[in-house]
Amino acid sequence: MSVGTGDPELITLKGLKILQNSPVVAFPAGVGNKPGIAAQIIADWLNPAQKTLVLNFPYVQDLRVLTPAWRQAATLVWEYLAQNQDVAFACEGDVSFYSTFTYLAQNLRQMYPQAKVEAIPGVSSPLAAAAALGIPLTLWKQKLVILPALYSVIELENVLQWAEVVVLMKVSSVYSQVWQILAKYNLLNRAMIVERATFPNQIIYQDLSDRPDLQLSYFSLLIVKLDDSGFLETS
Amino acid sequence: MSVGTGDPELITLKGLKILQNSPVVAFPAGVGNKPGIAAQIIADWLNPAQKTLVLNFPYVQDLRVLTPAWRQAATLVWEYLAQNQDVAFACEGDVSFYSTFTYLAQNLRQMYPQAKVEAIPGVSSPLAAAAALGIPLTLWKQKLVILPALYSVIELENVLQWAEVVVLMKVSSVYSQVWQILAKYNLLNRAMIVERATFPNQIIYQDLSDRPDLQLSYFSLLIVKLDDSGFLETS
Repeated sequence: MSVGTGDPELITLKGLKILQNSPVVAFPAGVGNKPGIAAQIIADWLNPAQKTLVLNFPYVQDLRVLTPAWRQAATLVWEYLAQNQDVAFACEGDVSFYSTFTYLAQNLRQMYPQAKVEAIPGVSSPLAAAAALGIPLTLWKQKLVILPALYSVIELENVLQWAEVVVLMKVSSVYSQVWQILAKYNLLNRAMIVERATFPNQIIYQDLSDRPDLQLSYFSLLIVKLDDSGFLETS
Repeated sequence: MSVGTGDPELITLKGLKILQNSPVVAFPAGVGNKPGIAAQIIADWLNPAQKTLVLNFPYVQDLRVLTPAWRQAATLVWEYLAQNQDVAFACEGDVSFYSTFTYLAQNLRQMYPQAKVEAIPGVSSPLAAAAALGIPLTLWKQKLVILPALYSVIELENVLQWAEVVVLMKVSSVYSQVWQILAKYNLLNRAMIVERATFPNQIIYQDLSDRPDLQLSYFSLLIVKLDDSGFLETS
């Protein structure tokens, strides 16, 4: 289930009901065994009688490391499901949007076909960021492209020729390259960054013109609005 | 404020709190003066002491018709704000995502700069549709394109060469053209439609191969997953 982007009140009623009625609540471990983001978001909604289950999803891209971790997580969850104990898996943002939930659900279904899995949608970070910026993400005939990360400079350049709105997820590791491209196309004043949208320590950068070297945290998202009409302010 | 896609329980806690604490609740009129979608979604959350304010946003694309309607809506809302009565504007889906809220907020700010406007994010239809389908919308390195409607067949063909996931919003009026393009690229079995996601009368089409002539309702959304890894099922 989706728990939203940071503000605990951005969980849906449906998500909260499932969360509070599940005897077991699972969530991804954070870096260095600290509670992960989802665990922080839902902390106030849990009660002491609920069992918590920390699942380890390594922060790497190597499938030889990830696959056994996904399978182990599925096994841990199944131990409860097999006893008819529902498990709520808390996931930051939305469960269908670049989410760890996908891998857990897939492995559960493959390994234990009798497992019942339900996805509860939630607030995703591009929309939370737009609300925080006080702008529409998209309107009218605008075409939206969302890139999970920058894998090719040429690809970003192509997208900038074509879309009216471009979102770069998790932009921190490629920020200086992206800044150069935006500078080349004279788009720095049409680019915005939201770090940790809706968290108490949210940071907003409304114009990147003088910021070639930002040190950004992992949950940083960049929005480029190429179309003037997209600059209607809403708050 | 965003009220989600249809299921009343997909409103956020934050949205519900604002909705129930506002003396005035505004929403768009439906077709033929019936209650609009947002009004239907929130009906059970309102109490009789709350004033409801129906705003008329014509279902046309002509700015000469729309602009005076937006200005009139802003004036009606301002009558309450000027008396320090908060107005919650209920909007289906998310307020920053192709939403009427944008035009209301823009006109309010232009006409009454002292108005305070806040956007509360919510569940958007592509993510609600993905959850209903039991698939991830996006995962891993998949690039996502969202098109508000089909304005050019060539544009859709280009996108299909390039993106891993394509969402066509409000596909009903152009469905037969889209079907032809998907057929040409042998993608009909990778295309899915969700009508009225999360409403009680939600309809899902998982494969469009034998469906060149679907009669779809206005809130119908098409997802094409071009990348095999996107076909991991999650529910």
